[in-house]
Amino acid sequence: MIVVVGKESPVYVEAAGEVAVRFVDALDDASDVFAEMEGVVGRVPPEVLVKAPRLRWVHSPSAGVDADLTPGMLASPVVLTSSAGNGGISLAEHSILLMLMLNRDVPRWMRAQAEHRWDHYRHGELAGRTVGIYGLGNSGLDLALKAKAFHMRVLGVRRRPGQPSPNVDELCDLDRLLAESDFVVVTTPRTPSTVGVFGRDAFARMKPTAYFICISRGGIADDEALLEAVRTRQIAGAGLDAHGVEPLPPDSPFWSLPNVVVTPHNGATSDGTVRRHQEIVADNIRRFVGGEPLRNVVDKAAGY
Amino acid sequence: MIVVVGKESPVYVEAAGEVAVRFVDALDDASDVFAEMEGVVGRVPPEVLVKAPRLRWVHSPSAGVDADLTPGMLASPVVLTSSAGNGGISLAEHSILLMLMLNRDVPRWMRAQAEHRWDHYRHGELAGRTVGIYGLGNSGLDLALKAKAFHMRVLGVRRRPGQPSPNVDELCDLDRLLAESDFVVVTTPRTPSTVGVFGRDAFARMKPTAYFICISRGGIADDEALLEAVRTRQIAGAGLDAHGVEPLPPDSPFWSLPNVVVTPHNGATSDGTVRRHQEIVADNIRRFVGGEPLRNVVDKAAGY
Repeated sequence: MIVVVGKESPVYVEAAGEVAVRFVDALDDASDVFAEMEGVVGRVPPEVLVKAPRLRWVHSPSAGVDADLTPGMLASPVVLTSSAGNGGISLAEHSILLMLMLNRDVPRWMRAQAEHRWDHYRHGELAGRTVGIYGLGNSGLDLALKAKAFHMRVLGVRRRPGQPSPNVDELCDLDRLLAESDFVVVTTPRTPSTVGVFGRDAFARMKPTAYFICISRGGIADDEALLEAVRTRQIAGAGLDAHGVEPLPPDSPFWSLPNVVVTPHNGATSDGTVRRHQEIVADNIRRFVGGEPLRNVVDKAAGY
Repeated sequence: MIVVVGKESPVYVEAAGEVAVRFVDALDDASDVFAEMEGVVGRVPPEVLVKAPRLRWVHSPSAGVDADLTPGMLASPVVLTSSAGNGGISLAEHSILLMLMLNRDVPRWMRAQAEHRWDHYRHGELAGRTVGIYGLGNSGLDLALKAKAFHMRVLGVRRRPGQPSPNVDELCDLDRLLAESDFVVVTTPRTPSTVGVFGRDAFARMKPTAYFICISRGGIADDEALLEAVRTRQIAGAGLDAHGVEPLPPDSPFWSLPNVVVTPHNGATSDGTVRRHQEIVADNIRRFVGGEPLRNVVDKAAGY
């Protein structure tokens, strides 16, 4: 049996063929079948893992699996897959949106519109500027493609430099990325090796005219250090879809800084992301039932 | 003598070689030399044209020359050149910005940020949608390039279909552009043949889910018809950098419609646009002085 946390989907039922699929609002609603379930589409907490002896496969509800990788999951032989890639395009769109909003000072236009004021000023353009992409997975590579169409120079940091990196002008180390970029964009998953990478030292190495953008996960930047950097204008500003604490508390100073654009971690919450997630899940159900290799198998040690 | 309306520029002086260049804040400040001036960088009203018998060349201060083409200029043998192309990249960036802002409902995020509210919702993405570009000049073609990097389908209407249109999936007529586009983007100059093209009938042919965007000139859309279309949600909304009356009056209803993003005709007012304008002017001064063919000569009958 496969348990799916979420709405009923005839596509999933069809993909499963003769194997039963049960849809539940929350995993606990399937407690009567924990002993029989072989696959789960949803997040499985450690206390359920130990009650599911036949479980062989879990598909995470999201692209980043930091929340799935509990100590129980790390120790378990269960195969974890993700919907990695479903949100890449949407996150790359969001990155360009945040870059344009900061470069053109969209909040200033929005204030003027609210006050019916014709506020004509000179702004920047992305053309000719440098974007430094920290992480060249699905969203990072799609961002590189878009950045080239914006006539930008593209620098990239990637963990496995041997892999192809189309549309990236140069791969480099973090130091150079920080020193040369007008926009530093964080697209990596949150893993033990990325947590806290952007701290006081990193912001000090950025240009004072540069913007910091994070569209993947909070915690990769140290929020205290970031706050100080934008408050003191050590850097020009920030565009933040992912935050160290989510939801961002109402008293967070990030909300009211004039050089910070905050979006509520829904850069990827698009119709297309949902559609691609469903396609990946259906494909993996079909593969699981047919005994074929699954897509997007997570390297638990690497964290993605 | 060449008279330049604007700030002193050593680059222009150098380009002019042995020919004198005079910089003035307003053309009237050069009234003592109207009789001798051979070239003007700036706008020349009809009453000055008749006082400048040696004038052979006028370079418009902008890319669109609708304001330069007075009856006096149309009747005069003076060669008119423009800075066409200086703002194309910046306007294409602005188009993508407006498309993203409407597609993701950025005004909603901005309201939430102002109120420190975590407002998480599902939005669209540009990928897979169709953009219809009305006019394939510099900005239209650069927009097509960007739209392809956003994985969009690109339709285009152009006056001279024989010219190359890279990144445009299909050239078509206006009817088809209106019927099939999710974003209709006006990039044409304002000329006798484009004024009023987007009226009641055009908006009625658009999809109810589609957005209208104008980044070139007001008057190509009939503002009364547009207002009715966005107010009644006959179309989903609009992104307007160019307006029928500018500055847009404080009591214009466009300012306060929730499905309209208003920017004050400064989509192209970027550092890069200014730099490219100066490069074109310097090049034309050098050509004028050297007796070479000028760049960006305006076809006065066509209006651009």
